[in-house]
Amino acid sequence: MDRIGIEERIKDLACLRAENMYLDDFFLTWDKTDDEIAAVFEVAEILRGMRENNISSKVFDSGLGISLFRDNSTRTRFSYASACNMLGLEVQDLDEGKSQVAHGETVRETANMISFMADVIGIRDDMYIGKGHTYMEEVSKSVEEGHRDGVLEQRPTLVNLQCDIDHPTQSMADALHIINQLGGVENLKGKKVAMTWAYSPSYGKPLSVPQGIIGLLSRFGMDVTLAHPEGYEVMPEVEEVARRNSASSGGSFTKTNSMADAFKDADIVYPKSWAPFSAMEKRTDLYGNGDFDGIDKLEKELLAQNAKHKDWECTEDLMKTTKNGEALYMHCLPADISGVSCKEGEVAASVFDRYRVPLYKEASFKPYIIASMIYLSKFKNPSETLMNLMKNDKNRIF
Amino acid sequence: MDRIGIEERIKDLACLRAENMYLDDFFLTWDKTDDEIAAVFEVAEILRGMRENNISSKVFDSGLGISLFRDNSTRTRFSYASACNMLGLEVQDLDEGKSQVAHGETVRETANMISFMADVIGIRDDMYIGKGHTYMEEVSKSVEEGHRDGVLEQRPTLVNLQCDIDHPTQSMADALHIINQLGGVENLKGKKVAMTWAYSPSYGKPLSVPQGIIGLLSRFGMDVTLAHPEGYEVMPEVEEVARRNSASSGGSFTKTNSMADAFKDADIVYPKSWAPFSAMEKRTDLYGNGDFDGIDKLEKELLAQNAKHKDWECTEDLMKTTKNGEALYMHCLPADISGVSCKEGEVAASVFDRYRVPLYKEASFKPYIIASMIYLSKFKNPSETLMNLMKNDKNRIF
Amino acid sequence: MDRIGIEERIKDLACLRAENMYLDDFFLTWDKTDDEIAAVFEVAEILRGMRENNISSKVFDSGLGISLFRDNSTRTRFSYASACNMLGLEVQDLDEGKSQVAHGETVRETANMISFMADVIGIRDDMYIGKGHTYMEEVSKSVEEGHRDGVLEQRPTLVNLQCDIDHPTQSMADALHIINQLGGVENLKGKKVAMTWAYSPSYGKPLSVPQGIIGLLSRFGMDVTLAHPEGYEVMPEVEEVARRNSASSGGSFTKTNSMADAFKDADIVYPKSWAPFSAMEKRTDLYGNGDFDGIDKLEKELLAQNAKHKDWECTEDLMKTTKNGEALYMHCLPADISGVSCKEGEVAASVFDRYRVPLYKEASFKPYIIASMIYLSKFKNPSETLMNLMKNDKNRIF
Repeated sequence: MDRIGIEERIKDLACLRAENMYLDDFFLTWDKTDDEIAAVFEVAEILRGMRENNISSKVFDSGLGISLFRDNSTRTRFSYASACNMLGLEVQDLDEGKSQVAHGETVRETANMISFMADVIGIRDDMYIGKGHTYMEEVSKSVEEGHRDGVLEQRPTLVNLQCDIDHPTQSMADALHIINQLGGVENLKGKKVAMTWAYSPSYGKPLSVPQGIIGLLSRFGMDVTLAHPEGYEVMPEVEEVARRNSASSGGSFTKTNSMADAFKDADIVYPKSWAPFSAMEKRTDLYGNGDFDGIDKLEKELLAQNAKHKDWECTEDLMKTTKNGEALYMHCLPADISGVSCKEGEVAASVFDRYRVPLYKEASFKPYIIASMIYLSKFKNPSETLMNLMKNDKNRIF
Repeated sequence: MDRIGIEERIKDLACLRAENMYLDDFFLTWDKTDDEIAAVFEVAEILRGMRENNISSKVFDSGLGISLFRDNSTRTRFSYASACNMLGLEVQDLDEGKSQVAHGETVRETANMISFMADVIGIRDDMYIGKGHTYMEEVSKSVEEGHRDGVLEQRPTLVNLQCDIDHPTQSMADALHIINQLGGVENLKGKKVAMTWAYSPSYGKPLSVPQGIIGLLSRFGMDVTLAHPEGYEVMPEVEEVARRNSASSGGSFTKTNSMADAFKDADIVYPKSWAPFSAMEKRTDLYGNGDFDGIDKLEKELLAQNAKHKDWECTEDLMKTTKNGEALYMHCLPADISGVSCKEGEVAASVFDRYRVPLYKEASFKPYIIASMIYLSKFKNPSETLMNLMKNDKNRIF
Repeated sequence: MDRIGIEERIKDLACLRAENMYLDDFFLTWDKTDDEIAAVFEVAEILRGMRENNISSKVFDSGLGISLFRDNSTRTRFSYASACNMLGLEVQDLDEGKSQVAHGETVRETANMISFMADVIGIRDDMYIGKGHTYMEEVSKSVEEGHRDGVLEQRPTLVNLQCDIDHPTQSMADALHIINQLGGVENLKGKKVAMTWAYSPSYGKPLSVPQGIIGLLSRFGMDVTLAHPEGYEVMPEVEEVARRNSASSGGSFTKTNSMADAFKDADIVYPKSWAPFSAMEKRTDLYGNGDFDGIDKLEKELLAQNAKHKDWECTEDLMKTTKNGEALYMHCLPADISGVSCKEGEVAASVFDRYRVPLYKEASFKPYIIASMIYLSKFKNPSETLMNLMKNDKNRIF
């Protein structure tokens, strides 16, 4: 994309109604209008274009981007840091081990104490059903109040870097990858996407990826198939979202317990392990009761249950059954690759290898998606500001 | 505060003699002249005003702000990071766990090795009586020498983020909060402030907060009352500072062993737990001798001693005895709130709740106070530089 | 150095052929031509001059400098952070404890996932013979491919912050220190440098320092003597490099098992402990086989072997035998100082004390050397860009 291409996209952006994103959080894609979703894609592409043309996208002269990760993370951490850096925000980790949050401080207080100079807060909290999203709403409410009461000079906006319900930065990056692969969002209509469970020797992978995918891709008129063995249901509320989206977008949402059915004639396949929703709910209860023996027992049961479905693997044979045998294979990474990262896993090594470059490209959209979400929550007139940045024409590299 | 207000304050600043702060450290408030203290408040307010008006206060194009925390910290860490970021310095933590300091390297060497690009060093070291301040002086001397000897291109200045003697960034933020609440520093004269001990189920809270408060507020002609049970004395040297300050400022410094006496007709109350000075001295000796059994025993004794004073709680009944029943309640946070963060603590939940917004505002001054201390140690002619920043008029957010 | 001096050096730089450094890594000094080595020195001096004259050397408006340290580090961490900051890059640590690398992710994938916005990657991996350099090459190949395949918008270049073979940022900083002490690179010719083993009570110190020193200083026509007790050989390949370099530079490379011989008439002495190469090879094998008992046993053997050579100490008596009794004493720090950091160590306390200031200055070159290496890998026409920075004339401190 050259400068003219970027400016055209900025003009397109001006036609989208995204003004309600200003000073708002990004929690769930289905909270956002179609125009808002489209605006996130546009700004992500514009920021990418600017970077490719060595044009600075630094809109903050100073300011902090707070990050709060409840578990280990490489790619999300780096994507968030990259997004903040691209816009001029300095990342400051709230490491709960190092902080007084661990000492029984309330969420409301901590949220305010870390936010005096915070323009954005990114949170990843996906470990317990019913917890992550709730926690993010609590933080949001706290800083909203803090701003209203004159405690905070600015209202930091939140970006959901993965919760128990949705993983919007992942699903949006995935969608932008598909849009790029298919040559435009309009080409998604009628395409079949198979979001399917796959076997992994590990336990308790979050549901937010499959939920995020069916909740988002169902908006584009796609034929979305959710496949998993019996007992691996996702949250019923999110299935309902997918059903509603499909109805209004002219696509379809189908459930099946057969991986083969899902792969048959699919344009896109997304085979990925996750834990059953009901088991995760049970785990949250056990955790709440401090019943760690119960959790251990549950883990063992789940691993045994997983092991009955080792045939849920994305093999070359299955890939052959997809549209022209060349469906786009997707994954949020890291994948459990059979014979490579584990004995038996989600995907055959030869399939993974063949799709390595597209998989890495898929991941490469995430920093831009996050930056776009931050950007749209911080500028009242995003297209005007971007056009001014283009006029300003500062080099990223001198 | 609008632009004109900011510029007026910059002119006021020009009248204060703060030139000796240039290239000097900020260790103890009582090392500073009245003009210097006033200059810190002025610059803090100016920086706040600039931020509220979206004017960049970035005076460093590059440079490091080193931080060295000897114990866990959320709010001080974020306040320091915010202050550095506001001025354009990037925070670099010296995590002693990760560094070779742990391997017996000398202070002098480490201080130089981390300071080649350091403009400022913030240290929090409040755990052992006789240690923190001494350590800071050692670091200061080391970098002073390093600069003199041509090792360091610049002389990094130090900010005391809490030591065993004083907690100047806290007490200055507290004072600026009071000034804002009372409508001007001149209104502090004659007001009664009660710095009182309060019960906490935890052990060994630092003395630097009460010491910092009596050492600073006694400068403004206030009637400062220090209240604690027998045996909870603070450092006698600091009491002497308060006594001297009160004499020259036309205020008073009173000690009492009754919380009720202290609260009676007080305009401001600051109930907060701390450990007895003599016990902390003993603990330092035990630590020096590696007598960890002795430390355990001491902790148990102190907890038992604390438990005799559970009636030292900031209750609604006590609050009613203050001036018009509406004294300003203050705390450095986090507080031990009875029935919330602990069974019995420093303050009743209803009192804390009623003062939540002012308490958060109190904390919000800290990043500006730290930035102001850094700023004044780095610019020979602070008002001129600030005026130039105003003329430069770069937006913080594009 | 004043502005005119800086500009003269920039003109000198223009005469050096360093264009192949553009988009290339810096792994081993002997991979680089004499012009390239000279260019690194020039740019380091220019950057230092700019900083001393308060001229911004910020060439990146945004961008990340990734750091990956396989063991604890204070000075290298701070040097790298300083270098990145000076150029405008924000450091992002890949903490393998916190990241999914620990979860069996492949190097190729991680290298790409962390590099979407990375302009440079600094790696320190010196713990196992045959591992560090190999790992760096793997990362380099991965990001090279990622860039070629369109995954990465830019090709992050790598800086070796210490591997099993070379420690180029140390040896180059050491060389620049010598150049400054002797008043020019041309004055190194014919000078005798003694890189000698010294006793330390600790075990397994890396070989990359002595290897880096003999591999680099042999280029300048110096008489390089490598001294160590029998059994403390360094990698034969690197000795071969030193031999070859000496032949073409008109210097000499001599080996001896006598510290006294090495010190005799030396202009420069570099006494420093290291582990025997063959023992380190054995350790790598034991590690590979998971034979931790074997490793423990090996450590004990090595400590016992070390203890036979306590007379390898840099004493005042030995120093008297050097050229005019005033050889330049060097060390990469921290040193094992007899009676200070250990009972018996590498150097007598009085010798170390006498050279403290030059030792600290020696270390002060490292941030500039690293910044120079990054700079030369990122700008096609380095002298032109530096001249433009001079014209641009932005203050580092406002």
